[in-house]
Amino acid sequence: MTTTPTDLAGLLPAGRVITDPSRVASFAHDEAAGAPYALPAAVVQPHDTAEVAAVVAYCAERGVPVVARGAGTGLSGGANAVEGAVVVSFSAMDRVLRIDPDERLAVVQPGVVNEDLRAACAAKGLWYPPDPASAPWSTIGGNVATNAGGLCCVKYGVTRDYVLGLEVVTGRGDVVRLGRRTAKSSAGFELAGLLVGSEGTLGLVTEVTVRLRGERTQEHTVVGYFADLQSAGRAVARAVASGVVPSALELVDRFSLRAVDEWKNMGLTDGGDVLLLARCDAPGAVGAQEADTVLACFEAAGATWSARSGDPAEADALFAARRLVYPALERLGMVLSEDVCVPRSLLPEMLARLEDIAARHGVHIATLAHAGDGNLHPMLVVPRGDERELARCRGVFEEVVDQALALGGTVTGEHGVGLLKMRGLADELGPAVLDLHRGIKRVWDPAGILNPGKVFTT
Amino acid sequence: MTTTPTDLAGLLPAGRVITDPSRVASFAHDEAAGAPYALPAAVVQPHDTAEVAAVVAYCAERGVPVVARGAGTGLSGGANAVEGAVVVSFSAMDRVLRIDPDERLAVVQPGVVNEDLRAACAAKGLWYPPDPASAPWSTIGGNVATNAGGLCCVKYGVTRDYVLGLEVVTGRGDVVRLGRRTAKSSAGFELAGLLVGSEGTLGLVTEVTVRLRGERTQEHTVVGYFADLQSAGRAVARAVASGVVPSALELVDRFSLRAVDEWKNMGLTDGGDVLLLARCDAPGAVGAQEADTVLACFEAAGATWSARSGDPAEADALFAARRLVYPALERLGMVLSEDVCVPRSLLPEMLARLEDIAARHGVHIATLAHAGDGNLHPMLVVPRGDERELARCRGVFEEVVDQALALGGTVTGEHGVGLLKMRGLADELGPAVLDLHRGIKRVWDPAGILNPGKVFTT
Repeated sequence: MTTTPTDLAGLLPAGRVITDPSRVASFAHDEAAGAPYALPAAVVQPHDTAEVAAVVAYCAERGVPVVARGAGTGLSGGANAVEGAVVVSFSAMDRVLRIDPDERLAVVQPGVVNEDLRAACAAKGLWYPPDPASAPWSTIGGNVATNAGGLCCVKYGVTRDYVLGLEVVTGRGDVVRLGRRTAKSSAGFELAGLLVGSEGTLGLVTEVTVRLRGERTQEHTVVGYFADLQSAGRAVARAVASGVVPSALELVDRFSLRAVDEWKNMGLTDGGDVLLLARCDAPGAVGAQEADTVLACFEAAGATWSARSGDPAEADALFAARRLVYPALERLGMVLSEDVCVPRSLLPEMLARLEDIAARHGVHIATLAHAGDGNLHPMLVVPRGDERELARCRGVFEEVVDQALALGGTVTGEHGVGLLKMRGLADELGPAVLDLHRGIKRVWDPAGILNPGKVFTT
Repeated sequence: MTTTPTDLAGLLPAGRVITDPSRVASFAHDEAAGAPYALPAAVVQPHDTAEVAAVVAYCAERGVPVVARGAGTGLSGGANAVEGAVVVSFSAMDRVLRIDPDERLAVVQPGVVNEDLRAACAAKGLWYPPDPASAPWSTIGGNVATNAGGLCCVKYGVTRDYVLGLEVVTGRGDVVRLGRRTAKSSAGFELAGLLVGSEGTLGLVTEVTVRLRGERTQEHTVVGYFADLQSAGRAVARAVASGVVPSALELVDRFSLRAVDEWKNMGLTDGGDVLLLARCDAPGAVGAQEADTVLACFEAAGATWSARSGDPAEADALFAARRLVYPALERLGMVLSEDVCVPRSLLPEMLARLEDIAARHGVHIATLAHAGDGNLHPMLVVPRGDERELARCRGVFEEVVDQALALGGTVTGEHGVGLLKMRGLADELGPAVLDLHRGIKRVWDPAGILNPGKVFTT
């Protein structure tokens, strides 16, 4: 079945239905390396919920696939277009509708960029915690679709923890409001939470009400260099067991450090092979005590160099360097990025298994980790266009997924399943739970038009 | 359709299938005043998941209703038996299976009493926050079924915020594991969160994995007496707007204070007509600063008497008195308890509307409120056996529900819908969202045997 662009154009004002193949191409895929995609039949740029509902209803009647798209920064292929699809781009629904300091909530359209929301909140002394590395570009709608995490998850939770309510267009084209604007509720099923992380398979999110926190007053940064992954892993395990809950606890391995140094010459590799970055944000004197505790954990685990950073600019530079790892690796080729998450006390074991897998396959796995919550991003660089090496590296990462599952972990900590984690998800959930997914999918999307072929096979 | 007790007895060892009408009577209803119930055909007391699954599969084949039951402390009729039902009592599945300090999680059977879990955690320096007033008796399974809240929700969230994973028996008798044991995951739909608050309509929870926090080091208590609800409401609004997030912020009105004084002669009414109790638990000096800020809010709103309590025993006594309100009112008759929740800045407006409703109907509405999150428990005392007065009071509370909805609130903050809030829920959600509930219900429970007639009509 193919779409009829002429009809679609009748649903939206001129200029907001794109069918020119050269223009739709830039809406065809997200940043997942090597995930399949097709050119969409059309891209629509609705300005409001009614337009979204009209497009979905049109597609539901005709069995046309609908793929929702935020900024396209996803890493699992969840926003990749499929054959004949209408891509709904939320780029024109990008307004912060309301920030309410008394209720500590914000109401936003899905196309708002994460950092724009954070800046708007900060202007009122409020804080929206979820901070994926993509925050300067990724949208709240995309963050909701993948249940995005970030650096501060270890203390403050993920996107779902901040979503109070949603306006959603279901696969029938119905507009429904889910969730609440009160501090709590036990009224019916938690459907807002169900939609968070559903990756466009159950509905299109057209408005998001998020919970906010008050701004933090301070953050103390602790830096530790280690000779190897084992001692860094032990430092993380000690920090986790100390009872301190840091506001960030990040690991950057030697391949990652080198990639940034080769690009930016920041001297990151001078201190040692593995970098741990921690932040502690308890207010008052307790924050400094927490930082001292973390520092003592780093030292006890054999840090080659460690210190509390007294200089906020220096600390920010180190966190900025961590954010440069992915683009630094992308300079070298196509980056395959994993996203497994293991029980946090098993992080050292998972790091050891990664080294073993790398050694057996003769590859360099660069690893970033949100170490405090056991979420690892092993990365492999593949020469662009080398399909054979791509296939080989995919096989390596399937082993990584299997090892994470063997440790009681999950195939995706924060990126979502999309196209790349479907095999792993099936293994993680098993057939009975997958059947429940399929049943729920049919309730929300009886025609099966919403992001077909993603997350699980129907 | 009626059950066949002989067959059921074949599924469980002798003595754990109860059919004697005089014995099943004590499993026929929860503590919801005046909610309908029937004597169950049988009560079963399984010892493990396999026994639960066998009973559910048996009932699914025969279309026999299954009603799950924890301690029966619910206030909405969610555990009330229906005609011909098998009540599954989890009283014999009451073990804390594991407490893992490194992962900060606990794995428990559903029949564990809330305070028993809290005590077991405290012995390891850990804390399970959800603290419903029923905590000395209610079970984790029941807390999960209703998404129970409590005093500390204002800062620490509700039961759902602490449920990482569940083992569930679906309406088909399948045993499934939902959720995770990692700190985060974006793998598939959030089905564990969907089951929390589903009140036994989607599955029977047979194991719960909960997230824990580290124990708190201190709590500062602030006490304020006010001449009327208006000034107390203003004090709450000021505290909420101050940016301090207290670990409790409770309101007790004059009818509630009087009921406790008439029973225990605690002198609660000496200080004024309305009592506010706040706690602040930030570590270190910041906690004391928070308490000072809250105290200043109380004073600025016109407290007749207010103070930071330096004496923990005195502070505990005041919180204990707050917990005595419900039993104190029960001495006077049957207690109808409401559970509406409004946006927290609208608490003063909701208190005013409660007074207006009471005046118009010539009733005394006693009110407890988790004031910091806008969750009110208006209560009416009805002479036992006076069906006419019961019906009249129900009508009064339907108005309360309507006013809460008019303010953008929800019909239940923490008690659940059960039987008593079904009309309000239908108004709150609307037909399209209710249809989504029905669809999801059919996926989990195709035979419609799980707690039929509760929450929403199928």
